[in-house]
Amino acid sequence: MTFGHEAAGFVVATGPEVHHIAPGTFVSPEGHLFCGFCRMCRSGRAHICENLRILGVDVDGLFAEYAVVPERNVWEVDPRIPPDVASIHDPFGNAVHTAYSGGGAAELATATVAVLGCGPIGLFAVGIARASGARLVIGVEPNEFRQALAKQMGADLVVDPRTEDPVEAVMAATEGHGAEVVLEMSGVSAVIDQGTRMLARGGRMSLLGLPSEPVTLDLTDQVIFKEARLFGVTGREIFRTWQQTTALLATGMVDVGPVITHRFALERFEEAFEAMASGRSGKVILLPQHPA
Amino acid sequence: MTFGHEAAGFVVATGPEVHHIAPGTFVSPEGHLFCGFCRMCRSGRAHICENLRILGVDVDGLFAEYAVVPERNVWEVDPRIPPDVASIHDPFGNAVHTAYSGGGAAELATATVAVLGCGPIGLFAVGIARASGARLVIGVEPNEFRQALAKQMGADLVVDPRTEDPVEAVMAATEGHGAEVVLEMSGVSAVIDQGTRMLARGGRMSLLGLPSEPVTLDLTDQVIFKEARLFGVTGREIFRTWQQTTALLATGMVDVGPVITHRFALERFEEAFEAMASGRSGKVILLPQHPA
Amino acid sequence: MTFGHEAAGFVVATGPEVHHIAPGTFVSPEGHLFCGFCRMCRSGRAHICENLRILGVDVDGLFAEYAVVPERNVWEVDPRIPPDVASIHDPFGNAVHTAYSGGGAAELATATVAVLGCGPIGLFAVGIARASGARLVIGVEPNEFRQALAKQMGADLVVDPRTEDPVEAVMAATEGHGAEVVLEMSGVSAVIDQGTRMLARGGRMSLLGLPSEPVTLDLTDQVIFKEARLFGVTGREIFRTWQQTTALLATGMVDVGPVITHRFALERFEEAFEAMASGRSGKVILLPQHPA
Amino acid sequence: MTFGHEAAGFVVATGPEVHHIAPGTFVSPEGHLFCGFCRMCRSGRAHICENLRILGVDVDGLFAEYAVVPERNVWEVDPRIPPDVASIHDPFGNAVHTAYSGGGAAELATATVAVLGCGPIGLFAVGIARASGARLVIGVEPNEFRQALAKQMGADLVVDPRTEDPVEAVMAATEGHGAEVVLEMSGVSAVIDQGTRMLARGGRMSLLGLPSEPVTLDLTDQVIFKEARLFGVTGREIFRTWQQTTALLATGMVDVGPVITHRFALERFEEAFEAMASGRSGKVILLPQHPA
Repeated sequence: MTFGHEAAGFVVATGPEVHHIAPGTFVSPEGHLFCGFCRMCRSGRAHICENLRILGVDVDGLFAEYAVVPERNVWEVDPRIPPDVASIHDPFGNAVHTAYSGGGAAELATATVAVLGCGPIGLFAVGIARASGARLVIGVEPNEFRQALAKQMGADLVVDPRTEDPVEAVMAATEGHGAEVVLEMSGVSAVIDQGTRMLARGGRMSLLGLPSEPVTLDLTDQVIFKEARLFGVTGREIFRTWQQTTALLATGMVDVGPVITHRFALERFEEAFEAMASGRSGKVILLPQHPA
Repeated sequence: MTFGHEAAGFVVATGPEVHHIAPGTFVSPEGHLFCGFCRMCRSGRAHICENLRILGVDVDGLFAEYAVVPERNVWEVDPRIPPDVASIHDPFGNAVHTAYSGGGAAELATATVAVLGCGPIGLFAVGIARASGARLVIGVEPNEFRQALAKQMGADLVVDPRTEDPVEAVMAATEGHGAEVVLEMSGVSAVIDQGTRMLARGGRMSLLGLPSEPVTLDLTDQVIFKEARLFGVTGREIFRTWQQTTALLATGMVDVGPVITHRFALERFEEAFEAMASGRSGKVILLPQHPA
Repeated sequence: MTFGHEAAGFVVATGPEVHHIAPGTFVSPEGHLFCGFCRMCRSGRAHICENLRILGVDVDGLFAEYAVVPERNVWEVDPRIPPDVASIHDPFGNAVHTAYSGGGAAELATATVAVLGCGPIGLFAVGIARASGARLVIGVEPNEFRQALAKQMGADLVVDPRTEDPVEAVMAATEGHGAEVVLEMSGVSAVIDQGTRMLARGGRMSLLGLPSEPVTLDLTDQVIFKEARLFGVTGREIFRTWQQTTALLATGMVDVGPVITHRFALERFEEAFEAMASGRSGKVILLPQHPA
Repeated sequence: MTFGHEAAGFVVATGPEVHHIAPGTFVSPEGHLFCGFCRMCRSGRAHICENLRILGVDVDGLFAEYAVVPERNVWEVDPRIPPDVASIHDPFGNAVHTAYSGGGAAELATATVAVLGCGPIGLFAVGIARASGARLVIGVEPNEFRQALAKQMGADLVVDPRTEDPVEAVMAATEGHGAEVVLEMSGVSAVIDQGTRMLARGGRMSLLGLPSEPVTLDLTDQVIFKEARLFGVTGREIFRTWQQTTALLATGMVDVGPVITHRFALERFEEAFEAMASGRSGKVILLPQHPA
């Protein structure tokens, strides 16, 4: 069994059709394998390709010593980005794409932004909102360890939904107006409903978290009368999001240091999984020996 | 009791603060009374004013011999628009605003557009989509009388949801891709769910119909993985939508003739209400005596 | 010597790396050969690739019995489009891309659109503006033969700049407001200046015509105080424009019949060139024998 | 003679029609007096009103003990903004509107931004670009005093056009790609030309500076083939820009401290004018006695 699609590593060998990437290059792969010819691919939306296959889901993934990836799915890592950070291009890109969806970064500047769920991707989103000119960044997260990380990533306010009603907390922090942008990272049905309730008139909620069941919403009062916009978000734009990711990571605009809480040599992968499951971790990185 | 907010008529008298509209002008009122000073008003979104009052709902409406309306809520009717058509500026504007929401008219040109619910506003939306460059316009409507009107307004295909599954019908008409734009006019919970299912990847559904209960949606498969966008829509943009409405009506780009199925003198209002309730009508117009 | 890049034809043979296009397919090539890896390609703007090569300019073109084109540059022609019309995908796409640039088709719906220069691409633009919901379409063109074609393509008004001042004519036709959209197809310095002068406040001018010398503009009064926007336009979006082109041509939304004024068998190419040079032609098509 | 339109002060008295602003409120006026009824006003673009009058230009301005301003032109100052900073809402708003024009703030995040001319408005623009997520901010300014201020406002690089070619300097700093956003604040013909030359493919130049003569540009190579966009910018959006301005100033996202180089009591206005003319100043503030 192989799975996993977040990684970075060195190109070991290339086929005869590869002209742009040389062996020895340090790269990170875009995990969405796209056909290049369907309506979505040919309108600049390859990440929602009609024939999409995903590394580690539909084809062998990156939990392996070597992986084969099409050249056009490979992103050359900016030399200013260290190897451990390089391995999070993929989930960081999820956060960028969610934050910049719809009106793009335009809606972040000077806005109040609420991030629902501060796992690693939510934590990245906090940092991206902060770096992109948000006026006020609010995180909602029940796990205390991650609440602290959200603060470190730049959240002005972190709400614990176990002790406080998140909708009331956001309203209180915004003079009753609500958040102009809500970034939904939890995939929890009740949280998505709360997201619509904390949304300001004319606001935007971008949904990356995947609810496992149908979600019931008060569309009339929370979406239609408010002229709210709900955006589904998946993957990352190929490769616009990677360009934005590089700008944010390579220049230090977002410091992901606090999110990477653990680093293990590859052979200690069992400890790494324990750390992931512990509830007291952000991103956990496995480091193989590498020739750099 | 007074209610109603769709109307057109002559200005009879003006107050000392009125400088732009003279007595005798033929006008139609924007029924959303806005404060002009809240965050929404001051960012160009007066139609979702935080202190909104609506003619015929919050204040006396237009089922009256005379009505008092703030000058800034009054729209001077283009002289090419006949008086009966003038009275539908308001609902026609709902249809314009719904069709042009989000990416604006941009998403209509060359797109497949499905209109869910072909009451008067849905029928207008069919005509607007057709005039704005839609490739294929599909109406969904159970009422046979209105099915015929949808055809007359320019629908290429009208689906009867009593005998056909609308999602399957739209998929069949689009080679399985779905509709790029869905305009939801029914407010029926199950129809909204169908709207998400017939939506193409990357598509947009604009919601004007008001469901009377919470709506359950399959967000994961029908919105998030497809990167669909759902837009709440209410009222009309003040007055950008009126400018667009004027262009569409005054130049004949949309002929609303088929939708106006009945015209009555004002005193025959009881017959008019019967016609409205009959299920065999489009828009029903009451015509008072007027000095034109 | 080979040149030319507008064409359609049958795929005769494919290489081992070609998986999506089979021999016998009727196709039209996108003439911009892009690298796929530069910043522009990787942000969805391959048509302004930093390593761009153009068929018939930088590499051998399509004035040849056979041409070699990368698979990813090939567009399968919709079967509803006849072969002669298929050969104008490329210039028709220029017109689509110019018309839909910036705010996209959104700015055409309900707008006044002026097309400066009604050669074949300008004539296509007239038809596209008409099909996309323009309220008023004005052509400016000195050649009488082409003035007549502009009328046939749907222009409401055609201005002869030899006898009338185009700026005054546009102002007169718009109650002094000017055109909201100007599509510049002439590449003539003085005409570009006129374009800025006929532009409404807040308007958009898209520039496709290539002036052969620097252009002097009154930026202060005609662009800055009016908050006008000037957009450079080149080529076509790959392949979003082709999708739009297909929708417009295959459904009959734009009938290019009037623009294709001449058809010749390939061996009569000398007559074809004479027709092109005569000033009494629109698009001139050469028809080789073909196995269809 | 009265002129000037940048100011903040206390409301002394209000007329009978004023309902939203009370005497004693600390306010700043929007200097563009708009009609509220023309096509621009009614499409959310009052700042380019067709009947525009400007405080201090068309009507008496704010170099006076008292001024009369329509209520709807008055902006209540956020209490977190100190009085001296409050007086620069107007020029700061110019900078916000220029920076956020077109694609809005979206194009700033992760972009390279060049600011041409670092007078007070240019200096504000440097700070706004920095706060809105620009990757690299480059100022171009010949005055050494202001070069230092540009650095203090957050410019990564300041180019002296007397000793360095600004186009070459920007290209060198961007690996030859150019700046994605150019904010033109100088109004100097040659600088505007340079702006187009330093613009990246697909880039945007927003023009606020007012050239006193026609400007000659190489449209073909610097705008059309690059698909660059040139945006005229004037005034500020009423009041969206003021909302953004408040967010940027009240939260400390932009610290305008370095730009306000001089503060004088009102009676020392002659010294203030000398400071302005000295070439060794940023913004010069006159402070009347006030009842706060």
